[in-house]
Amino acid sequence: MRKENISDAVIRRLPRYYRQLSDLRARGITRISSLSLGREMGITASQIRQDFSCFGEFGQQGYGYHVRELCEEIGRILGVDRDHHLILVGVGHLGHALLQNFPFAKCGFSVDAAFDTAPAVVGCTVNGVAVRDMDDVDEWLRGNPVDVAVLTVPRGAAQDVADRLISLGVRGFWNFTNLELDSTHPEVKFENIHFSDSLLTLSYRIAND
Amino acid sequence: MRKENISDAVIRRLPRYYRQLSDLRARGITRISSLSLGREMGITASQIRQDFSCFGEFGQQGYGYHVRELCEEIGRILGVDRDHHLILVGVGHLGHALLQNFPFAKCGFSVDAAFDTAPAVVGCTVNGVAVRDMDDVDEWLRGNPVDVAVLTVPRGAAQDVADRLISLGVRGFWNFTNLELDSTHPEVKFENIHFSDSLLTLSYRIAND
Repeated sequence: MRKENISDAVIRRLPRYYRQLSDLRARGITRISSLSLGREMGITASQIRQDFSCFGEFGQQGYGYHVRELCEEIGRILGVDRDHHLILVGVGHLGHALLQNFPFAKCGFSVDAAFDTAPAVVGCTVNGVAVRDMDDVDEWLRGNPVDVAVLTVPRGAAQDVADRLISLGVRGFWNFTNLELDSTHPEVKFENIHFSDSLLTLSYRIAND
Repeated sequence: MRKENISDAVIRRLPRYYRQLSDLRARGITRISSLSLGREMGITASQIRQDFSCFGEFGQQGYGYHVRELCEEIGRILGVDRDHHLILVGVGHLGHALLQNFPFAKCGFSVDAAFDTAPAVVGCTVNGVAVRDMDDVDEWLRGNPVDVAVLTVPRGAAQDVADRLISLGVRGFWNFTNLELDSTHPEVKFENIHFSDSLLTLSYRIAND
């Protein structure tokens, strides 16, 4: 029932729906209309119905959406039930913060290992994750393939590290390096967190809105 | 020359243009056509011309854009030349990482102070920024008003902290707490970094694209 060529905008709203529905579940709400869901999220009801129609039929005329069922279905669409595996490369301040605080498991990811080049952190364990020597990444990945690498290396090292990991079969990158990464492999996906884009958007808004 | 009601999508592209043009400057490129700029960014030339037309006339028929001038102009639009002031609230792993590594000054922000409740960090200095006791934030802000607060507190404390800071005059929030914050003040702007939305988008893409 899934349509082809679902737009980027729709895909980016899915995690927002998932987050909102998870919150509603936690608040004990069992059903919700597209109108109320839209109001909570600042989206029109027709936008919501149109988005969901890309993935099949959810909800029922006159009843609305069953919160738990819809939440689980969107979770399945997003792959939170798939047990993806990842490594984190670059255990500086940010890498450390993600290992300590980010709920990877809730997003459906197991953190199998972390890698760094600094003798001061190699051999340590951060929140149960062993920090290994980057020199060993090739051998390690051959025995432990992963879907995703979290890149928290310095910007200057980002493309080289990505190229190396792509050659070892990694196809997804969660990229915090503020560098737009390239690959000749069309199946490689880069998802970027650009902190400065976000702060500059806020800078614009406080001055202009 | 600036139009009213510039769309969210256009505003969100401005920091990307700024980043791309800064990169071009660093690479020594002095002018660029909308076609080439679009190719580098995965945007059509007509989209670029349409976006820029919201802010006046840049570029010249047959010459293209002067990279440095356009970069500086977009920087001005974004407010990187304004010397905004901010505080960071919550000096845990992520707050620490931002203070250590994020180039606030390049985005036009001075970090005036950080605040926390934990005796272990209050009184410390992180990358030149003094960490103060959250109990003193009211008095401190009265003497040192800021435009923005970076929220890196635990999710459970986020709304209370935001409410308190809003009552003290803070109007912009860079929100890392994964909680959608509310305010009855229409002039308050929240800019959210939702890490999990980003990772779930990647999760979808590696499974479906």
